[in-house]
Amino acid sequence: MQIDMKQPILDKNDRLAQSNRELFAEKKVFVLDLLASPGSGKTSTILATIEALRDDFNIAVIEGDIASSVDSEKISAQGIPAVQINTGGACHLESDMIRRAVEPLDLDNLDLIIVENVGNLVCPTDFDLGENMKAMILSVPEGDDKPLKYPGVFQAARAIVLNKIDTMSVFNFDKELFRDHIKNLNPTAPVFPISATNGDGVDIWAQWLAEQIRAL
Amino acid sequence: MQIDMKQPILDKNDRLAQSNRELFAEKKVFVLDLLASPGSGKTSTILATIEALRDDFNIAVIEGDIASSVDSEKISAQGIPAVQINTGGACHLESDMIRRAVEPLDLDNLDLIIVENVGNLVCPTDFDLGENMKAMILSVPEGDDKPLKYPGVFQAARAIVLNKIDTMSVFNFDKELFRDHIKNLNPTAPVFPISATNGDGVDIWAQWLAEQIRAL
Repeated sequence: MQIDMKQPILDKNDRLAQSNRELFAEKKVFVLDLLASPGSGKTSTILATIEALRDDFNIAVIEGDIASSVDSEKISAQGIPAVQINTGGACHLESDMIRRAVEPLDLDNLDLIIVENVGNLVCPTDFDLGENMKAMILSVPEGDDKPLKYPGVFQAARAIVLNKIDTMSVFNFDKELFRDHIKNLNPTAPVFPISATNGDGVDIWAQWLAEQIRAL
Repeated sequence: MQIDMKQPILDKNDRLAQSNRELFAEKKVFVLDLLASPGSGKTSTILATIEALRDDFNIAVIEGDIASSVDSEKISAQGIPAVQINTGGACHLESDMIRRAVEPLDLDNLDLIIVENVGNLVCPTDFDLGENMKAMILSVPEGDDKPLKYPGVFQAARAIVLNKIDTMSVFNFDKELFRDHIKNLNPTAPVFPISATNGDGVDIWAQWLAEQIRAL
C-alpha cells in the first residue's frame, strides 16, 4: 500500500485558495504569485514593477521567506504596504498564509497584490493561493537549460520574466535555445527579458501586467 | 489537533540513511551531498573538483534532478561513472533513492561519491542520505544576503563553496558581509571562493576535500 502524504495537504490548501479567489474577485484586486529561485532578483523585479505601475494602480506586496524581513523592509521603504510571512522552514507559501497576510491590507483600495513566494523552483508550483496568475522569474546566471530541469514551474507560469539580461555576455546564455525550451513546455507564455537593476525591458513587462489587471 | 505529515517520512528516511552510512563505511567510500540553488554551478563545480582529484581518487557521481539527464551526460563525457536520478517532481533526494543509485556502482573500487542534490536551498537540508558530509554552493549572482533568508542550509553545510567569484564586480557582492553572516550561523564552516569556469580557488577547495576523504 502506498500512502499519499501530499494529496490531503493539497486538498485542504485548494479549498481555502478557492475562498481567497472569491474574496479577491469581490474586492476587484488582482493577485500575482511570483515564483523564482533564491537570488534571481524577485525583490528587485518587484521594486522595478512597482515603479512602473504605481501611478496607475494601488499596490501591496506579500513577502514570503523562510526567515528575515529584509525584503519587506525594502518594499516598505518605497511607501508600499508590505506584509512579511516567515514560513519558519517551509519551502512554499500556502493559501492559509495568504489569507492571514491580507488581513491587515485595505483590499477595498487595492488593485494589485504581488506575492513573492519562497525562493524555490519546485515546491511553490503545486500550491494554489487563490491568485489570478502565477508568473516566474529566471535570471540569466542560472543558465538556459533550466526549463529542461525544472519543467513544472515553467508550465505553471503564465508569463516568464528573464532577469539580469545585462549579464548575458558574462554567462554564455543562449536566448534562442531558452525560448525553444519554453515553446516546448508552455507555447503561449510570453517571455519578458529585463534587467531589474538598469530598467531595460521593465516597461514592456509592466505594460503587459497592467493589461491583465485591467482585464479583471 | 495537528498532524505532523513530515515526521514519519523523515523517520523512515533516517533509518535507511543509517544503513547507507554503514554500507559506505564498510566499503570505505566517502559520500559528499552537495546542496545549492538551481543554476549556482553545481555540475561545473563537480567537474572542476573531479579534474583536481581524479589522479588521486576513484570518483563516481549521482545526479539528482526532477527531470532530464543533461547533468549525468556531462559527467559521463569525462569518463566518470554517473547515475542519474529523476525524482519526477520531488524537490529533494531521499535515502532510498541513493540506495538504488549506488547499486550499479563498484563500491569496492570507489573512494568518493559526489551526490548532486536537486537544485533547492530548502528541502534537501532535512534529509540525511547517509552521506559523510553535506556541503553547499552559493553563487555570487544569488546575493550576499542569502544566509539571512535560507539559514537552514548554511547551518547544515560543513563547508560552503562560493562560486562564480569572477562575476563579483558585476553583482555588487559584499564578501566580508557574506562571511559575517556565515560566522553567525555556522562559525566552523570554511568558505571556499572559487570560479568553476576559470578554475580560480578550485585547488584549495579540492585539497580540503581530499583531506576529509583521507581522514576516513
